[in-house]
Amino acid sequence: MSLDNNNNATELPSPYLLFVGDVVEPGFAKTAFGLRDWAADKCIGEYACDPAAVRTGLPQLSPADAAARGAKAMVIAVANRGGVIPPHWRPALIEALAAGLDLIAGMHSRLTDVPGLAQAAQDHGRRLFDVRTPPAGLPIATGRKRSGKRLLTVGTDCALGKKYTALALADAFAARGVAVDFRASGQTGIMIAGGGIPMDSIVSDFEAGAAESLSPDAAPDHWDVIEGQGSLLHPAYAAVSLGLLHGSQPDVFVVCHEPGRAHLLGVPDYGVPTVEEIVDLTIALGRRTNPAIRCAGFAYNTAALDADAAAALMARDAERLGLPVADPIRRGAAFDQLVASCLGVP
Amino acid sequence: MSLDNNNNATELPSPYLLFVGDVVEPGFAKTAFGLRDWAADKCIGEYACDPAAVRTGLPQLSPADAAARGAKAMVIAVANRGGVIPPHWRPALIEALAAGLDLIAGMHSRLTDVPGLAQAAQDHGRRLFDVRTPPAGLPIATGRKRSGKRLLTVGTDCALGKKYTALALADAFAARGVAVDFRASGQTGIMIAGGGIPMDSIVSDFEAGAAESLSPDAAPDHWDVIEGQGSLLHPAYAAVSLGLLHGSQPDVFVVCHEPGRAHLLGVPDYGVPTVEEIVDLTIALGRRTNPAIRCAGFAYNTAALDADAAAALMARDAERLGLPVADPIRRGAAFDQLVASCLGVP
Repeated sequence: MSLDNNNNATELPSPYLLFVGDVVEPGFAKTAFGLRDWAADKCIGEYACDPAAVRTGLPQLSPADAAARGAKAMVIAVANRGGVIPPHWRPALIEALAAGLDLIAGMHSRLTDVPGLAQAAQDHGRRLFDVRTPPAGLPIATGRKRSGKRLLTVGTDCALGKKYTALALADAFAARGVAVDFRASGQTGIMIAGGGIPMDSIVSDFEAGAAESLSPDAAPDHWDVIEGQGSLLHPAYAAVSLGLLHGSQPDVFVVCHEPGRAHLLGVPDYGVPTVEEIVDLTIALGRRTNPAIRCAGFAYNTAALDADAAAALMARDAERLGLPVADPIRRGAAFDQLVASCLGVP
Repeated sequence: MSLDNNNNATELPSPYLLFVGDVVEPGFAKTAFGLRDWAADKCIGEYACDPAAVRTGLPQLSPADAAARGAKAMVIAVANRGGVIPPHWRPALIEALAAGLDLIAGMHSRLTDVPGLAQAAQDHGRRLFDVRTPPAGLPIATGRKRSGKRLLTVGTDCALGKKYTALALADAFAARGVAVDFRASGQTGIMIAGGGIPMDSIVSDFEAGAAESLSPDAAPDHWDVIEGQGSLLHPAYAAVSLGLLHGSQPDVFVVCHEPGRAHLLGVPDYGVPTVEEIVDLTIALGRRTNPAIRCAGFAYNTAALDADAAAALMARDAERLGLPVADPIRRGAAFDQLVASCLGVP
């Protein structure tokens, strides 16, 4: 996988040193684990400012040692509550700049808002990348059909595996010898891919245009596997989902779902829609920019179930829905069927 | 009609002096005519910098005379191709600031980008309002059901009467003694209402939240009539339309349509969807935040037809669709039926 040169998408310097700060809660280090698991070739080591911090298993390196081994940037690979960069991380960030590394962050608070950091970057001739800051000059969508094939992961809610599913499918496509690019639409995905567009940070008028820029014309047998965002039935984020759907003009989509999740994450008054509702709406809206759109199957996040219960549930739902249902983390035969269904091969 | 105090919506100083510059093409003076027709109580006069400029019929006043009659701001009420503010308008803009008027503009180029204007405003203690600049601090949508009743105009395309229809319905509601506010979601509407939110300029993650802010909790029998934007089946702007739909949580919607328009404006490869498609999608998506959502009827823009042909077409479509079809410019009995259908009264 690689990210083609694309004037409208952010491109990040790598390889990375992963900064884990003093974060001890693994749930707040998802970016670090995601980068380790999905961008191993981009990760040279980890750097903590507290010995109790989470461990990724990568070599522990100082910024100077990482730079000597070829690192080009230090990524803030952890978050803390509120998404702010605390003042006591500042010395470590400046140490990285002094060692010749650029800084990359995807938090709500920006690197350029940390007092003194912009000046330190300038003094050391380094750059600050806030991956939530969208690229300039995004176009209004044209709706013109682009060459190449596209897959989009969609969902019944946020945070149930749309990025993971897209990465797993792109990997499986590549393993079958298919030319494929993973296209990242959120901050962690952008760090993994080394580029992409933060779709939730785009001005609405340009949302579909940004999605068009994210997956440009490609060879006829090339696949872009695009990370989805939100849900068409999410009361806050559906605008992001629809702009991404229209601009991606996917040939194929996979619906991501977490069985047993009763309510939308953080929106207790809203139940999770059924996968059938999402299939119907995705086709009704998506066929506007790609009349050939089809659902290839379902990616279930079954982390809450044991292996037997998960397998039984997915087999039952595959029978009912008439399409493959697989957990991209558990893999197995069902996942192979999902991959084949996406590619339209036996 | 009035705009309630609302922390998240722009509020503009009025009454206005309308600046028409040296624009001679009436098509580029739509804001001036819209303000004259729909905000007559806010318009004190017009000011041109060329005797050949379009006339609104309002008194011709210098900024100083307008200020003496109570004007609080001069509105740039014309556009030229490209939406830029040409350098030769600058003396007139500075004259207005010197006369004690604030400046209001809704063009793509901003008042603050005109060289010297920010300094002149500061020197004279005046303010510059770019109504396309969204208010700060917009929230993420909660999906919480708000009190009061809401109507949203939706459309099969852009630029076919969603603002006009909303204004005409709000006027008709008021004429029946119904408590009503027109809620503006685009730049001309915002100038007419004296406030509102430019929905196409909002970062997508906040689109539905901005719509929630636009029509806050109100008395149970109060109506907000909300100006729609774009179309759920527009390949570029559907994200704006869906965020506005979810956040507005309308009880009632009216579909705006121009019979005979073959293709989307500016998107020749895309046909105009049917009104039935828009009804079905608006209900399928809108019932997520308001399960009681219903279509009250259709507002046709029949400017291209003569009166008899328009009446025959609308009668035929009303029969087929089972709901009132009216042209809010032609009015008549069909429009009264549309108003009654919106209010749910005989």
